[in-house]
Amino acid sequence: MTTGYDRIRLESLRDKVISAEKAADLIKDGMVVGSSGFTKAGDSKAVLPALAEKAKNEKIKITLMTGASLGHGTDGKLAEAGVLSKRMPFQVDKTLRDKINKGEILFIDQHLSESAELLHNKNLPPVDIAIIEAAFIDRDGSIVPTTSVGNSVTFAALAKHVIIEINTAVSEDVYGIHDIYQAENYPHRNVIPIVAPWNKIGRRSIPLDPNKVIGIVFTAKKDSPADIAEPDAKTTAIARHILQFFENEVHLGHLSDRLLPIQAGIGKVANAVLMGFKDSNFYDLTMFSEVLQDSTFDLIDSGKLSFASASSVTVSEACYERVFGNLQKYREKFVLRPQNISNTPGLIRRLGVIAINTAIEFDIYGNVNSTHISGTKIMNGIGGSGDFARNAYLSIFVTQAASKENAISHVLPMISHVDHTEHDVDILVTDIGLADLRGLAPRERAQAIIDNCAHPDYRDELQSYFDRACERGGHTPHLLEEAFSWHIRFSETGSMKK
Amino acid sequence: MTTGYDRIRLESLRDKVISAEKAADLIKDGMVVGSSGFTKAGDSKAVLPALAEKAKNEKIKITLMTGASLGHGTDGKLAEAGVLSKRMPFQVDKTLRDKINKGEILFIDQHLSESAELLHNKNLPPVDIAIIEAAFIDRDGSIVPTTSVGNSVTFAALAKHVIIEINTAVSEDVYGIHDIYQAENYPHRNVIPIVAPWNKIGRRSIPLDPNKVIGIVFTAKKDSPADIAEPDAKTTAIARHILQFFENEVHLGHLSDRLLPIQAGIGKVANAVLMGFKDSNFYDLTMFSEVLQDSTFDLIDSGKLSFASASSVTVSEACYERVFGNLQKYREKFVLRPQNISNTPGLIRRLGVIAINTAIEFDIYGNVNSTHISGTKIMNGIGGSGDFARNAYLSIFVTQAASKENAISHVLPMISHVDHTEHDVDILVTDIGLADLRGLAPRERAQAIIDNCAHPDYRDELQSYFDRACERGGHTPHLLEEAFSWHIRFSETGSMKK
Repeated sequence: MTTGYDRIRLESLRDKVISAEKAADLIKDGMVVGSSGFTKAGDSKAVLPALAEKAKNEKIKITLMTGASLGHGTDGKLAEAGVLSKRMPFQVDKTLRDKINKGEILFIDQHLSESAELLHNKNLPPVDIAIIEAAFIDRDGSIVPTTSVGNSVTFAALAKHVIIEINTAVSEDVYGIHDIYQAENYPHRNVIPIVAPWNKIGRRSIPLDPNKVIGIVFTAKKDSPADIAEPDAKTTAIARHILQFFENEVHLGHLSDRLLPIQAGIGKVANAVLMGFKDSNFYDLTMFSEVLQDSTFDLIDSGKLSFASASSVTVSEACYERVFGNLQKYREKFVLRPQNISNTPGLIRRLGVIAINTAIEFDIYGNVNSTHISGTKIMNGIGGSGDFARNAYLSIFVTQAASKENAISHVLPMISHVDHTEHDVDILVTDIGLADLRGLAPRERAQAIIDNCAHPDYRDELQSYFDRACERGGHTPHLLEEAFSWHIRFSETGSMKK
Repeated sequence: MTTGYDRIRLESLRDKVISAEKAADLIKDGMVVGSSGFTKAGDSKAVLPALAEKAKNEKIKITLMTGASLGHGTDGKLAEAGVLSKRMPFQVDKTLRDKINKGEILFIDQHLSESAELLHNKNLPPVDIAIIEAAFIDRDGSIVPTTSVGNSVTFAALAKHVIIEINTAVSEDVYGIHDIYQAENYPHRNVIPIVAPWNKIGRRSIPLDPNKVIGIVFTAKKDSPADIAEPDAKTTAIARHILQFFENEVHLGHLSDRLLPIQAGIGKVANAVLMGFKDSNFYDLTMFSEVLQDSTFDLIDSGKLSFASASSVTVSEACYERVFGNLQKYREKFVLRPQNISNTPGLIRRLGVIAINTAIEFDIYGNVNSTHISGTKIMNGIGGSGDFARNAYLSIFVTQAASKENAISHVLPMISHVDHTEHDVDILVTDIGLADLRGLAPRERAQAIIDNCAHPDYRDELQSYFDRACERGGHTPHLLEEAFSWHIRFSETGSMKK
């Protein structure tokens, strides 16, 4: 393994090496900055933190676009320092979230496949400076990214200037795990020729005009590790319901026991479902997803999963060592793509993806809220859930039936914010059970959801709402004056219970 | 032109000719029936009406799937006769709508691209009998459809039995205006090789196993004509705002004056926008849409529109004669595709479609309701608006700012039913003005919508709601206890005004 300057294989760029502080000085008030980083993987670990530091003493406000969330608390540091005027397309940071909800920072919650499109189509302001983490710069000036691709291909292509963070903590062996492809601009866009998760259709590095490079910064810091929570009784129950459903679909001849490519959102439930496959009869499984977690590599190790496609690897420290310390073993098993490819609608439908995503709450008709508390305060963002749910072969959403000692029901008469309409939701699952909504009209959906998914403490009240709404009539019966009464009661009394 | 039996070119099928009544007798209680017909074009004109007649004296209930809405009041006749237990994926009939809203008929409101997918994936019950209108049956037993393709390719492929309605009022010259393509089943689906609206990638007739044909019925009845309403002051104003927006996008270098393929929903506004192009500087325009209306052919005649792709032609009587009486002139100018191709997400994004659809109401954050009155009663259905809006290059929604002597505001604090989330809405237009929401966070969107789209009678109240919600905080500030107060006030007083 080489380190330092050897990683700048285009020698003419070697005099661009600067400190993180100098790089941060290149970022001026009012700029639009595009940074690598997707679910804590492959993010800027030097320049953005240095910018946050610098902003403690200097007024500077930028628009920051990334792939998705950043690691190392960087979003929080930037928010705290007042650097962010606008942020997109996703975040998970508590400090940043609080400032968004106070209206101090503007946030655009975007489908993760769309940010790159919007930039290419000039529907967003142009990027002034891109900051891209790299394993090395190749002889042609192209960049080999690290543990995520995110929007870096678009940022590199469109930004006026580029700062590269060479991370020597990442092995140069990552060369070849990325599939770098950028669709043509309109009106000359062609077919994206992926027909299976393992197809590689692009380059191995991100093309970049070396004249745009205004700084190269060295770092040697690993990605923030993923938080791995052990499955609990609820996530285990949810996973069991989903696996039973899959087994039954195979039994009915709807699916083979290879299933179809799986997308799994981040978190405990996704990990629990994937781990459930380990002891199942399914085989030769594949993933076409956006983030690969520990469970992906566990399933590869168990021989159940043949191939996984995504935009980032976000894993625990132990799993990181296992994967990136044994790339020879894993490199033919996964690929990282730009997020406008990993999440592109046409591919999701073409491949027939089975999408499993987490809801904050859903209503009796199957509409799903993935983002907002009480219709007002954002948690994280829609992420890729909409890209996948809309175009999936099967769209599954999961949540716990109730929480906070059952003071909160996650199955509601009407949700306070809609991210996924009932048209895009096939299967709903809670720890209580699974509602198969395929082929059901709204009134049938309501009964299936109340019967199968609602927590017993809330079932009668949901039934009462539904029955009284049906008496008044309608295709989707509602009592508008009562529709949000559960949310309002919770804010007044601390419980949704009457 | 040949008539009658000559239109059954596969001679062995000629002994299948039966009366519409006999054909209706083949449909039994409990069956799933798939019928041609898309926005009144190419629908069953003999067998379904005969079924409605028969059901006056006999209990028979079926699930009816179509392409979209039927003509000749057939949906109303079927609903009145009590034939329909379940209906999908779209309707526009008053009698049927009333029964849906009373809960007497179950309706599934589907993205029009998805019904065929759901059938192929066995996510819906199998089709027992398909009824397909044809211009003629070719020598190989394949069917040449008439003025729409809809879901007929899927129905023909999957139904156990098929009844063909040969409509001798349609010229056999329609041969060649259809592009019949069916994507492979999972997991072997390949690329759909369309990269421009005019690409023809399939056959000219619908493949069909002649052994499945259980009846051939002759009809000689034209499609119900489209209702053409002249542009009024509001639709003209909306169209003007949109055209000015396009002109400005060209001026800014975002689009060329060929624009990109246009999708336009049915109705007055779409017609008004398209007619507006006649006297513009735009040229060599194309459409990638689902329905072609009079305005499409007017634009072709004016030399502004080069090519139009859709799933049906739904035009006035005069336009029908002009187009189908001069197919030699028009046949190279348009193509009709299966609705799972005309509306497929991947193609809409690949081509960069500019989507223009009509809303019932939208809220200050840009969420759109296309289907429900007061969150409860359905009007028509989502149709293809979701297919296009989600994946479009630009997604535009239009509505009047206020109606019923301004007793109803169509711009609201919160909409009562969400079909399109703010993530999928770029531009909102009313007769008052246009709000360009690209690159705006929710609080910015709200101000742009209030300032540009709201009717003056409601602007202060919207501003008051927004201001008070912002005081309480949140990424998407709302006052849940007040969010539906406008709808509730209207139902109580007949006006949304305080």
